[in-house]
Amino acid sequence: MANLLVDERDVQFVLYEQLKVEDLCQIAKFGEFSPEVFDMVLDAARKLAENELWPANADGDKIGVHLKDGQVRVPESFHRIQRLYCEGGWPSLSIDQESGGQGVPAVIGCAATECMIAANLGFMGYPGLTIGAARVLEKFGNPEQQSTYMEKLVSGEWCGTMCLTEPQAGSDVGALRTKARLNPDGTYSITGSKIFITGGDQDLTENIIHLVLARVEGAAAGTKGISIFIVPKKRIENGRLVDNDVTTVAVESKLGLHASATCALNFGERDNCVGYLIGPENSGMSIMFHMMNEARLLVGLQGLALASAAYMHSVRYANERLQGPHFSAIRDPDSPKVPILEHPDVRRMLMWMKSVTEGMRSLLYYVAKCVDLAECSTDRNDAAKYRGIVDLLIPICKAWSTDIGFRVTELAVQIHGGYGYCNEYPVEQFLRDVKITSIYEGTNGIQALDLVGRKLRMNQGALFQTFIGEVSKLVARVNENPRLKPIAARVDEAKSHLIEATVYFAQKAMSGEHAVPVLYATPYLELFGDLTIGFMLLWQAEIADEKLQAMYANAGAGTPEKQKELAESDREAAFYLGKIASAEFFSQSVLSLAQGKAKAIMQSGTGFLELPKEAFLRI
Amino acid sequence: MANLLVDERDVQFVLYEQLKVEDLCQIAKFGEFSPEVFDMVLDAARKLAENELWPANADGDKIGVHLKDGQVRVPESFHRIQRLYCEGGWPSLSIDQESGGQGVPAVIGCAATECMIAANLGFMGYPGLTIGAARVLEKFGNPEQQSTYMEKLVSGEWCGTMCLTEPQAGSDVGALRTKARLNPDGTYSITGSKIFITGGDQDLTENIIHLVLARVEGAAAGTKGISIFIVPKKRIENGRLVDNDVTTVAVESKLGLHASATCALNFGERDNCVGYLIGPENSGMSIMFHMMNEARLLVGLQGLALASAAYMHSVRYANERLQGPHFSAIRDPDSPKVPILEHPDVRRMLMWMKSVTEGMRSLLYYVAKCVDLAECSTDRNDAAKYRGIVDLLIPICKAWSTDIGFRVTELAVQIHGGYGYCNEYPVEQFLRDVKITSIYEGTNGIQALDLVGRKLRMNQGALFQTFIGEVSKLVARVNENPRLKPIAARVDEAKSHLIEATVYFAQKAMSGEHAVPVLYATPYLELFGDLTIGFMLLWQAEIADEKLQAMYANAGAGTPEKQKELAESDREAAFYLGKIASAEFFSQSVLSLAQGKAKAIMQSGTGFLELPKEAFLRI
Repeated sequence: MANLLVDERDVQFVLYEQLKVEDLCQIAKFGEFSPEVFDMVLDAARKLAENELWPANADGDKIGVHLKDGQVRVPESFHRIQRLYCEGGWPSLSIDQESGGQGVPAVIGCAATECMIAANLGFMGYPGLTIGAARVLEKFGNPEQQSTYMEKLVSGEWCGTMCLTEPQAGSDVGALRTKARLNPDGTYSITGSKIFITGGDQDLTENIIHLVLARVEGAAAGTKGISIFIVPKKRIENGRLVDNDVTTVAVESKLGLHASATCALNFGERDNCVGYLIGPENSGMSIMFHMMNEARLLVGLQGLALASAAYMHSVRYANERLQGPHFSAIRDPDSPKVPILEHPDVRRMLMWMKSVTEGMRSLLYYVAKCVDLAECSTDRNDAAKYRGIVDLLIPICKAWSTDIGFRVTELAVQIHGGYGYCNEYPVEQFLRDVKITSIYEGTNGIQALDLVGRKLRMNQGALFQTFIGEVSKLVARVNENPRLKPIAARVDEAKSHLIEATVYFAQKAMSGEHAVPVLYATPYLELFGDLTIGFMLLWQAEIADEKLQAMYANAGAGTPEKQKELAESDREAAFYLGKIASAEFFSQSVLSLAQGKAKAIMQSGTGFLELPKEAFLRI
Repeated sequence: MANLLVDERDVQFVLYEQLKVEDLCQIAKFGEFSPEVFDMVLDAARKLAENELWPANADGDKIGVHLKDGQVRVPESFHRIQRLYCEGGWPSLSIDQESGGQGVPAVIGCAATECMIAANLGFMGYPGLTIGAARVLEKFGNPEQQSTYMEKLVSGEWCGTMCLTEPQAGSDVGALRTKARLNPDGTYSITGSKIFITGGDQDLTENIIHLVLARVEGAAAGTKGISIFIVPKKRIENGRLVDNDVTTVAVESKLGLHASATCALNFGERDNCVGYLIGPENSGMSIMFHMMNEARLLVGLQGLALASAAYMHSVRYANERLQGPHFSAIRDPDSPKVPILEHPDVRRMLMWMKSVTEGMRSLLYYVAKCVDLAECSTDRNDAAKYRGIVDLLIPICKAWSTDIGFRVTELAVQIHGGYGYCNEYPVEQFLRDVKITSIYEGTNGIQALDLVGRKLRMNQGALFQTFIGEVSKLVARVNENPRLKPIAARVDEAKSHLIEATVYFAQKAMSGEHAVPVLYATPYLELFGDLTIGFMLLWQAEIADEKLQAMYANAGAGTPEKQKELAESDREAAFYLGKIASAEFFSQSVLSLAQGKAKAIMQSGTGFLELPKEAFLRI
């Protein structure tokens, strides 16, 4: 099978030509790695994705998960891929070596994970949350907890979950009611109900380690009184696993992700559910906050991965599907049919899908590399700078990538026409699967509030200033290149409009009109994301143009005709031309709206917040 | 059950306060109707929709259709609703009285159909296509054909279909291969395969009348050589129904519309399929073109109807779902939970959903009323004017309403959060069901080409001029109203930008650069739709403001405080305030982008049409 999941050439471009990840090997922590090792990892991930995860993807969708006799059962084919996934050492890929992991840089983990998610998002939820749980224990667990659980999680022998949501408390985590009562032996008795728990139960592993947010008796209301507990499905007593009074009440029947068990769990139905406190009491939210960046980056990656698979499938389809004559011969019934890739409307859609997919890949890998640098830089200022970039851009990574990722899958259905609406083709599954990513791990509305309410304010706006500085530097550099100057100008203009909107928000906040930034946080995040993607694509165009000019020079291709000839015969030249085209198209078709988007934010009032509810519906 | 399908108050507003449909009763053709009769029709439609169609909707989705022993079976509950639908006389609602129908104006048919579609799109596909087939026979069938089929179709005893698409010929209808061979008795033998035939088989009716596009042996290639035939599933021989060699090969398994049988049909597998020519040979396409406006309006209505149901469900949910404190008390864990309708981000989404849903309803009813006037006006100029409005706006009705309708269902899922992703709530079904509407009956890309390639050119651009004239007239009028002037100004500005883009396309076409309008037809249609909806909402705001001012005057509410009090205690005042808010919000948040959208069209090149395909994917 041709790889229709992730564009390998583009992955190589982002990693090595744009981000120069080989430089990470100079850092002590990554000293034993080399580009060759990175490529081996990526190659192995790709093979697992293509040969094993992808073939089980449709299976997972059609068969789904089932709850029977209190036990969730996953599709048969998932047992095989779980085994292969563990055998390949994938659960421990980006866990530190001192914790038993392989410790590859986050950016490489990101690239490896992208193609595995593109192949099978339903499956990847199980290990995805396991890594999250392992990380919590790695950073906040006590030595006993680490020795009890880490090895099993890191090997994939056991899975982990994150149990936050309760029926009455969705986005409002502080409203949770699950209780923890201190036992004389220092453990806690947990009672309560959680919903929407990904991988809350399954029959892939003999045990599941739930990390559960709960309130210790007598603790404060709201988020301040929340603690976090290890609650194993089966606890260890005298070296044996015994049931820990965790009951799977239901699995949700969902739009997509049928293979991922979304569970409602009851803890302590028989008052025999034991939990083990992680860190001090009441530190549950701050521990979760530490994990948040990574978790949200991962969800952004899910948006990218499904966009990537949707785009790749669409290009293949558009190249193979013959229909109608070329538009220049539309009135001639005898003119030959052409692939729909030649039809302008289809090509325009593909061009948009290409540019945003490449832009998201660049953004997510870039932020992942900043995660690496923030953790490893010995220079404190450098570390702070990278941490700031991560903090600022995480809501964009999560929300923009999942909103736009959905949009890409929508267009993939459109390009496939009637066939796209049928299960026979995989694109409608992409659309259904990816939709959840705008909802879980903090809805995209929550991401926007995080951006506007927290991130813009951090260090008196310094994060934003730093980011704008990076954009300005790039624009100044590219402005010297007459071929790319128009693109740079559009990025620069979008930057000014984002600044305008940001200043406007700051003024409103200072004058106490908090409703304004709260009300327009989502359109603001969209505008911010547009600029960020424009910035990424301009950066890529700069590199591509340099490579292309060198190729032209090498080939003695001085005239446009000769250059066109080269591009048509040389795949590398075509790739670089495509890169520049992505930046150009995105700047023209998306960044041109920046002024209007800023205007819409700044001129729109808050009047409709005052409308009586009867204005919406005679309820 | 509260009506969560269509906002009845808004329907009344559009019909009577905005469009003054009572005036239609002055026309001879509609002389026996009155507003009371219209309301009886709407009331009956609503009752059928709420009490019968809606309860079967989830059923249809879960059970779906199945092909067994060559026969498609629909869910059991559909037999009941089919019977009730026929008993209520709904199949013949807008069929002329001389053809055995009830002859209600198209605009009333539109309003009645909206709520039935909102209740059950899967079911409504069967009668929808039946009406289409009946109309073809009504207009183009010979008397014998009419007497054989019309009564059965109009009573709903038999269903009809439209068989256009073939595997190799989707949007390119001219490529079809189904053959017709003239028999000595004047009938034709039909052989060929069709796919994606809605209602291609079912067990609701004893017979199905397929209208089949086919090429008579020796006819020209392309669309010119296409004829249209009646091909009954069972033909009448000596007063008995006998099999007519139409085989159902498959039913598609689809993203949504599970209750609607999308069939692959083979005609003449045993060389015993008889077809009856409608009209002269080779007139198939022109006959189909006559039906196109109505069919596309109906699909636009499907986009509106599912948007409406999605919006109504979302408002109810947002009003009932308590979560988190009011944003002004965000830091106080003890502050009471508020309905998420109070959360600014949710309200902003609802406001957008409300404004576009109301705008679409206004547009579609308006165009339907123009259909009535075009058919009934005794003044030839008037008739031509209305026909021109219909022709121009039909692609907008179809494409804008289905694209935006999908977007509304997407936000409905978002507002429902995790619950929206689960089957337990109906919104995810709306999203899946409505997606097909951007694809069938001419993809939205085809609609855009129809707008740019045909409609803008008709009568040397006179249609466009007329439409712009209507917008200008409204703007001039509303400009006199200081309260609404800012909204009118934004509509006027959007109008200028649409004109700019239109002139730009005309110039490009004149200079032979046809690629430009072809490439940017879809973004152009979006901009055109934005202005059209802005126009509709401004028109509604004008009326609402007048009513509101009268209410204030009656109540002696001279101050803003008193006016606010009135709006909070009087549902009518709240409704009108909501109307003005819709126009204001849409003009601010959508029309503000018009300049950028026009710029994106005009500054974007055609360069990427020349990219080698390897730039898209190393295929």
